[in-house]
Amino acid sequence: MLKRMRASDTGKLQTYLESRTEEIDSDIIVRVSAILQDVKTRRDDAVREYTQQFDGILLDSMCVEPSDIEAAAAKADPFFVESMKKAKANIEYYHNAQKQNGYLLQKELGIYLGQRVLPLDSVGIYVPGGRAQYPSSVLMNAIPARIAGVKRIVMITPPAKDGSLHPNIAAAAQIAGVDEIYKVGGAQGIAALAYGTQSIAPVDKIVGPGNVYVAAAKKLVFGKVDIDMIAGPSEILVIADADAPAKSVAADLLSQAEHDPMASAILVTTSEQLVDAVELELRKQSALLPKQEIVEQSLQAYGTAILCESMEECLDVSNAVAPEHLELMVKQPMDYLGKVRHAGSVFLGYHTCESVGDYFGGCNHVLPTSGTARFSSALGVDSFIKKSSYLHYSEEALQTYGDHIIEMAEQEELQAHANAVKVRLKS
Amino acid sequence: MLKRMRASDTGKLQTYLESRTEEIDSDIIVRVSAILQDVKTRRDDAVREYTQQFDGILLDSMCVEPSDIEAAAAKADPFFVESMKKAKANIEYYHNAQKQNGYLLQKELGIYLGQRVLPLDSVGIYVPGGRAQYPSSVLMNAIPARIAGVKRIVMITPPAKDGSLHPNIAAAAQIAGVDEIYKVGGAQGIAALAYGTQSIAPVDKIVGPGNVYVAAAKKLVFGKVDIDMIAGPSEILVIADADAPAKSVAADLLSQAEHDPMASAILVTTSEQLVDAVELELRKQSALLPKQEIVEQSLQAYGTAILCESMEECLDVSNAVAPEHLELMVKQPMDYLGKVRHAGSVFLGYHTCESVGDYFGGCNHVLPTSGTARFSSALGVDSFIKKSSYLHYSEEALQTYGDHIIEMAEQEELQAHANAVKVRLKS
Repeated sequence: MLKRMRASDTGKLQTYLESRTEEIDSDIIVRVSAILQDVKTRRDDAVREYTQQFDGILLDSMCVEPSDIEAAAAKADPFFVESMKKAKANIEYYHNAQKQNGYLLQKELGIYLGQRVLPLDSVGIYVPGGRAQYPSSVLMNAIPARIAGVKRIVMITPPAKDGSLHPNIAAAAQIAGVDEIYKVGGAQGIAALAYGTQSIAPVDKIVGPGNVYVAAAKKLVFGKVDIDMIAGPSEILVIADADAPAKSVAADLLSQAEHDPMASAILVTTSEQLVDAVELELRKQSALLPKQEIVEQSLQAYGTAILCESMEECLDVSNAVAPEHLELMVKQPMDYLGKVRHAGSVFLGYHTCESVGDYFGGCNHVLPTSGTARFSSALGVDSFIKKSSYLHYSEEALQTYGDHIIEMAEQEELQAHANAVKVRLKS
Repeated sequence: MLKRMRASDTGKLQTYLESRTEEIDSDIIVRVSAILQDVKTRRDDAVREYTQQFDGILLDSMCVEPSDIEAAAAKADPFFVESMKKAKANIEYYHNAQKQNGYLLQKELGIYLGQRVLPLDSVGIYVPGGRAQYPSSVLMNAIPARIAGVKRIVMITPPAKDGSLHPNIAAAAQIAGVDEIYKVGGAQGIAALAYGTQSIAPVDKIVGPGNVYVAAAKKLVFGKVDIDMIAGPSEILVIADADAPAKSVAADLLSQAEHDPMASAILVTTSEQLVDAVELELRKQSALLPKQEIVEQSLQAYGTAILCESMEECLDVSNAVAPEHLELMVKQPMDYLGKVRHAGSVFLGYHTCESVGDYFGGCNHVLPTSGTARFSSALGVDSFIKKSSYLHYSEEALQTYGDHIIEMAEQEELQAHANAVKVRLKS
């Protein structure tokens, strides 16, 4: 099931990983643009009509009342609710450490300057509807926003045909501390968050996964509001030593493959024997999976085993791929963590399967895909703050340094910039 | 010269500020796409041809040799070089305080997790050519990258017709610590940085201002590499009390207006008398400016004075606009800084004109424009790092918490995620 290659073929691997990220079809862009424009002008009326058209339900009100959230959440499985509460505590523990402080620097002549760290005012979280529901995403998106100090966290999600909210999503929203919930999805939901309607006040940033219409809408409203990264297909790269249990390695590759036929699972190892053993396990385990078809498509297309001469070479391969998820399935993982230059999140040792982190460990599961870990980071508290600088010069300071400022402005032929200093200087 | 409005008209103001940000023409997108594709396949050959076509010079080599940088820099004015060195020290002082550390959290049962802070490997800085040259931008872009720990900082700039490099740009590059300089501009330059050619190795992030072709190219390569924000037209908002010197207020408004006919200068005050006095000064000072025509176009189109009842109302107006530059031209500026929720950079008191910060004070001058200060920040050390998380669970930890992870995975109908835990648990 796994394509086998040598480490020297990593370039080829990278090319086909990158090729997974597709441009959004221009037809979709045109259709989504029209929806955005319509919601911008006709507001709630437009949203109501699109909801009827796409979700098959005519809603009197998009707003989910607190009592309805309560009622829906009450239907969630109590053990699941307990699990989410424990996950929440872990997510808070990890993300609390991301909080940043501003600073103030004081210099000679009454000069001072610094940086303030401020939360965004409001954030919208998109939660996909349909049969798949991902309450863990609600936790991963809302909790860092809350810790950042965002005062208004809005969730939107497409309504089911009967207008109901999924109990697990309602419970997750309660646990994470979402302030408002609206039953609206698709491009019309993104438009409502970006421009505001009579029912929904606009937000400053929109996060959360969605289908191609949602992704297109997010791209188009970017600039008016901020967005998180548009996620590409997911990937895992497992670096395994000869002692790594094949059963566990295979299970982890499968957990990635079940997401999507475009997901990719990559094994990087010094042991050809391990590759053989993992192959056997993949066949055995995949046969029993409810999503067997997706898993097999994904492994067929992107499943790869890369044989290396040494652990150093394994790490070179991983750094070249810059995977979203990296498992170091080795006996002494901390010996190698320092050599990981590009990875969204790293899972250490034989017992830390990616799903520990996806759900429970506390790190964020919204991660840079398709090699973008070279230059970007997981969602976190940073995603919900902004920084604002300040500067004070006294009269004496300006008198002392003014000539340098005038010189620099005049060299750039910006005379009015120089004048702003000159009019303040004693001659 | 200033349109006068009341604070209640801020909505109108905001609408026309936003309207300044134009979509890039689709013709330009198509032309730029073709250039990108051509450079991606034909590499140096394509770059050489576009340089001949657009810059009117056929270059043997794009690379500027260290001796040529040295020779060009030696022609810069010594006082200007001294000014830039002092500015560099201030920029380093401010940005050093932005450095972030990773963290490690240790929990029960051998659980540990944390976050590493890593520099980007390589960064490309675009420096516009033509008659305008902005050496201060070289400092503002390169110094934070250096402080972040970026090992390879590449600068590209279109060659002059005689193939020379501007002395001021060469000197700025030397002072800021740029590692490589190439004479290439436009979309072909952005393509070379994103995809690499025989002469130029690719980079992970591209920053720096450019014309519409450069902006379009940056948008199109985003995803393959990271980019900074595409800057819109610049703006200043001056909050002035009745005692603010009209001469200084006017000079600062003009310093913004000289950038661009789309730049906007906004005065917010409680004193109608001040507005009258500023108007007189604007007429007097603008008549003497080399860029009088641009200044008058800009003030005519976007120059605004907003009269408020109180300082609180002034701050409300400013927060609604979320200006790139905010001057608090008031006697006690620190009384109000805490009330500023959205501003790229704040200049405090009567003697801190924006140009102090543009050139010299130490804060970054690459700032969020057109109201995006609501959700984004200045360029800084943050722009050149990424964060990577890690997580370790011991066998005992997985044994203890595994049921919660399995529960959460199964509620999301991701059986392979649950299995990854199950195969590791003792039954």
